[in-house]
Amino acid sequence: MLIPKGFLFSGVSCGIKENKPDLGLIYSPRELTCWGVFTTNTVKAASVLLGKKFIRQKEIYGVIANSGVANACTGEEGVKKALTLIKEVSKRLSIPYKSLLPASTGVIGEQLPLEKILPKIDDLISGLSAQNYIHFAKAIMTTDTFPKVVFKKTEEDIVILGVAKGAGMIAPNMATMLAFILTDAQVSKDYLKRVLPKIVDHSFNRISVDGDTSTNDTVYMLCSNLKEVRNWEKFEATCLEVAKELAYLIVKDGEGASKVIKIVIKGAQTKKEAKLLANSVANSLLVKTAFYGEDPNWGRILSALGKTGIKFVPEEIEIYLNGVPWIANLKVLKNEEKIKEEMRKPEIELLIKLKKGKLSCEVLTTDLTEEYIRINAHYRT
Amino acid sequence: MLIPKGFLFSGVSCGIKENKPDLGLIYSPRELTCWGVFTTNTVKAASVLLGKKFIRQKEIYGVIANSGVANACTGEEGVKKALTLIKEVSKRLSIPYKSLLPASTGVIGEQLPLEKILPKIDDLISGLSAQNYIHFAKAIMTTDTFPKVVFKKTEEDIVILGVAKGAGMIAPNMATMLAFILTDAQVSKDYLKRVLPKIVDHSFNRISVDGDTSTNDTVYMLCSNLKEVRNWEKFEATCLEVAKELAYLIVKDGEGASKVIKIVIKGAQTKKEAKLLANSVANSLLVKTAFYGEDPNWGRILSALGKTGIKFVPEEIEIYLNGVPWIANLKVLKNEEKIKEEMRKPEIELLIKLKKGKLSCEVLTTDLTEEYIRINAHYRT
Repeated sequence: MLIPKGFLFSGVSCGIKENKPDLGLIYSPRELTCWGVFTTNTVKAASVLLGKKFIRQKEIYGVIANSGVANACTGEEGVKKALTLIKEVSKRLSIPYKSLLPASTGVIGEQLPLEKILPKIDDLISGLSAQNYIHFAKAIMTTDTFPKVVFKKTEEDIVILGVAKGAGMIAPNMATMLAFILTDAQVSKDYLKRVLPKIVDHSFNRISVDGDTSTNDTVYMLCSNLKEVRNWEKFEATCLEVAKELAYLIVKDGEGASKVIKIVIKGAQTKKEAKLLANSVANSLLVKTAFYGEDPNWGRILSALGKTGIKFVPEEIEIYLNGVPWIANLKVLKNEEKIKEEMRKPEIELLIKLKKGKLSCEVLTTDLTEEYIRINAHYRT
Repeated sequence: MLIPKGFLFSGVSCGIKENKPDLGLIYSPRELTCWGVFTTNTVKAASVLLGKKFIRQKEIYGVIANSGVANACTGEEGVKKALTLIKEVSKRLSIPYKSLLPASTGVIGEQLPLEKILPKIDDLISGLSAQNYIHFAKAIMTTDTFPKVVFKKTEEDIVILGVAKGAGMIAPNMATMLAFILTDAQVSKDYLKRVLPKIVDHSFNRISVDGDTSTNDTVYMLCSNLKEVRNWEKFEATCLEVAKELAYLIVKDGEGASKVIKIVIKGAQTKKEAKLLANSVANSLLVKTAFYGEDPNWGRILSALGKTGIKFVPEEIEIYLNGVPWIANLKVLKNEEKIKEEMRKPEIELLIKLKKGKLSCEVLTTDLTEEYIRINAHYRT
């Protein structure tokens, strides 16, 4: 297995959730270089408030993450509890206090049940091993139906490991998801500060399940500095690939989703315009339900483009489904049966061409199903 | 029954939809004063393109409306077909060509089937009667489960009749809905130009079912000028009441909805801020599914407020459900059972108080149910 050198992993069940792993640890005996990108929601979880501070420090040795409780909307008490957890784990690892980055995901408005968590710290630490990344990946799951792990190796033998959680509340701007990009490359903090936001913008910020953004979104990048990078371009591209594959897995596991749909806008006048149009289609409930129903109702796509208020000539729009020309000059080009056949596939590319300019944007989305409602109405996330 | 003097109504089935009324006429033998407010979607139906021109003319005698086909994304051919329909009806009413306002609602991307509609015009006209407003109301229904009609009379004996359709795609900014406000008051076009947008802004623009806006939204106000208005304030207020009640009925009939939820924001710094916050909560799928599941998951409400990016102190937010204090200082004030009991009611008021300023906003929304998905995935609207 491709595991970046210098990292150990662990995951245990504390009972925050019933009979499921809910506490995870990433630990490096050596100091790490790290950076983070966080939610833009005004309401920020304790882990986000603390993480934003911690990444500016010099000494970081890993991540302590929990699922089940988001520790958001928990006020000062929530911050205190998160600090207690960090302190207790740090103490037993003999590393300085506040040198572990926190991450939480789960129900908003509930406090961390420390009485359940603290007694499990010894087990958590004794479970540390390079092979146990899957235990960590499982410990951060909420409505996820599978753990999300991606490995890549560059030609220079640098390994990049991505671990993420996320299945719902995924929207432009990185809604409830946690992601950890780990590498044994030697990089500077300045490099991460510059590159990580770009990577996030082209991966996690281009996915949409339900248009909601969360209080806890966090992407951390951690580097153990054991391997020298020469080809920086290739390194950055590989990190982006890892992030994009994680983003894809999150959409694939979208709550109740039966299809992954890539919305591609081409020919927009500005980047911003391309993004707005792509997101409007990706987030439209009517488009998402039409895909679920495998109904080639292209008017809903036109309507979703138009509701942005962005000016375009409807007659100039061209639409392709999985490469099959579908709509041009407001007319259906192929017979509906061919398009319906394409709609039945689990992976769909919807390409929308404008004739305004040269800019483009891609966003991944899902269809919207009864199962989404069931999960979100009857399961407390 | 309270019917404004001077108006006749009719509705027939042409077969645009199967065995359901789908063509409606409002006619006044006298010239009307009228104005309209239309969708802001860049993609505009033929009826919207024409209606926007027609309201600027002097002579208007009524409305010709159809359901089943939206006549949107139909290009020049769509406009020609709409004009043919208007021309044929006008000819048989012996009124000038282009003196009927058009309105359409239904599937986008399909042409008006004139071969089915034109043979029914004689029946449509012979059915005209002051009592037949309900036939008109039925003829404009699509996924509506009941016709929407509201009557009011002022102390001066002025009658205002509102007829509307709408059950889905209802969002801030007046998504797929048609509304007709008819009165026997004597008003000037300038008065309507000034007052109708205000009325729309405080009624139809304050409702939300699924966040989608449409190509066909239209609100027409038509006045037969038979009664003199003295108390203008009262008149305007009564018109607004009619519009608000129609808006309420549209939400009540929201596709698959089991509850009507009034979101009230108080204490915002600006009007714009209050509106953004109210709409963010009203459109959040996670809030809407939580209400459906009768799950007092207040974290989703805080998260929906926060995702606007508007700054506030989470600790200062107060939340009330049907007047029952629920959240303050990030704590649940009453036990969850009391809140759950309130959530079970079909009519809910969710009051959110900020401590930033004095401005407020109200938006009506619904819960989101499996039935919404079923309707929109398997029924072509």
